[in-house]
Amino acid sequence: MDAFASLLRWLDLAGSAVFAASGALVAARKGLDAVGFVVIAVVTGFGGGTLRDLLLGRMPPFWLQDPTWLAIASAVALLVFFLGHRLESRFQALLWADALGLALYAVLGAEIALLAGAQPWAAVLLGTVTATFGGVVRDVICNEIPLLLRQEIYALAALAGAAVFVLLRIEGVWRDPALLAGLA
Amino acid sequence: MDAFASLLRWLDLAGSAVFAASGALVAARKGLDAVGFVVIAVVTGFGGGTLRDLLLGRMPPFWLQDPTWLAIASAVALLVFFLGHRLESRFQALLWADALGLALYAVLGAEIALLAGAQPWAAVLLGTVTATFGGVVRDVICNEIPLLLRQEIYALAALAGAAVFVLLRIEGVWRDPALLAGLA
Amino acid sequence: MDAFASLLRWLDLAGSAVFAASGALVAARKGLDAVGFVVIAVVTGFGGGTLRDLLLGRMPPFWLQDPTWLAIASAVALLVFFLGHRLESRFQALLWADALGLALYAVLGAEIALLAGAQPWAAVLLGTVTATFGGVVRDVICNEIPLLLRQEIYALAALAGAAVFVLLRIEGVWRDPALLAGLA
Repeated sequence: MDAFASLLRWLDLAGSAVFAASGALVAARKGLDAVGFVVIAVVTGFGGGTLRDLLLGRMPPFWLQDPTWLAIASAVALLVFFLGHRLESRFQALLWADALGLALYAVLGAEIALLAGAQPWAAVLLGTVTATFGGVVRDVICNEIPLLLRQEIYALAALAGAAVFVLLRIEGVWRDPALLAGLA
Repeated sequence: MDAFASLLRWLDLAGSAVFAASGALVAARKGLDAVGFVVIAVVTGFGGGTLRDLLLGRMPPFWLQDPTWLAIASAVALLVFFLGHRLESRFQALLWADALGLALYAVLGAEIALLAGAQPWAAVLLGTVTATFGGVVRDVICNEIPLLLRQEIYALAALAGAAVFVLLRIEGVWRDPALLAGLA
Repeated sequence: MDAFASLLRWLDLAGSAVFAASGALVAARKGLDAVGFVVIAVVTGFGGGTLRDLLLGRMPPFWLQDPTWLAIASAVALLVFFLGHRLESRFQALLWADALGLALYAVLGAEIALLAGAQPWAAVLLGTVTATFGGVVRDVICNEIPLLLRQEIYALAALAGAAVFVLLRIEGVWRDPALLAGLA
């Protein structure tokens, strides 16, 4: 189970990093400075997981218990700040970052909800919320109508991914993030 | 007391449904797709009650413990999505839905706060918050200045309704949502 | 320690009042009515402290336990509503109110986090969050890109203030809000 907890932690870090990148890419489009990059990256990267923990009654949230999270999100933001202009298509990169983050967090959110004793349907819902909330906050702060509401494929992909994962889990099978990534 | 708890539950479901309708009507004005309708309806319908439970320290929130809530809000959203264009005046319908939801939730929020041991003034405040927060989140996500801030009658009606209700409760009398509806 | 708790409370009230003023000044620029002034003032004044308490798992928040908070924030909002037009430069006043509030809340948020047993780096982060979150919510509700993201000096001043304070505290020295105010 130790290896399992460690795997969950790595997936969570990867999801945060990817969402932080997506936040930083939006900051780039808005022409914000370095501080703005870090703030948006942190909010996008931690938003979904924080809401998940809040709804499960698990406070303080993960990123207040270990400085690794903050360090990684900030590093990603600064990386995008200094190197982002080399990307050929920022919007394309944003879509990829969002899709990958969605896949990771939908599965991870559902798993954590199941571990916390949530019913299967609630786990699917929490997976979807974990996967989409960071992006919604990012867009709200940047004063845009959330991408989630404009491109329905996002919410449906997260929902489908979380649902497939929970079904497999209940059947005793193991995870299949690849399937999810395919969907997204 | 069983009948009472059951009444509270019905009022809560009715309030959620009405606010979900108001959320879906705003989604219609924004030209969102079916997923957007459901998301906005759910956020509007559950926003106020979730903040109330959060401030009272009652997590996880009600809609994660029973799938009925989600089913009703989604059904209302899809109903508005498929039938909403038949409404003669969507904005008029929105105002009515908001007023009815405000009345229900101001009283309900105050009652739940009282049951949770809050002081009367805090119960009035929580009733007002429960009644207005869903609409604020709806407008913030849709990138509009909240209706609450543009039409002061909303906040005042919710405040007055919650205050009248708490006064009556303290005096040992029972509820009077009709009075509230009249105000709104 | 009684005198100390009382000092913390006074600082908290002062911070809330100053942020309430800053919220009311933004409401003035948006042309809102008296209700809008009070709502924005309350949200700006309590937003940071509420998020801090939420992340520390301390619910219900301070302003639901004592009506003084609400009375002060509302009084400040109405004062700005009736007298604000006499100010020569509202934007200038807003910047000053924000700077003073930042200084107070960065130190106070860090202190409260330390008292709650947070690690030093987390206390610095929570101080920064306490100091900046109210203004972010204010700007999001008023449909503007947060001042925080447009003027990097704000976030950095709060971060620096909280960091200096936590360092001094760990070294056993006492507080120095003046230093912070200087920074801001």
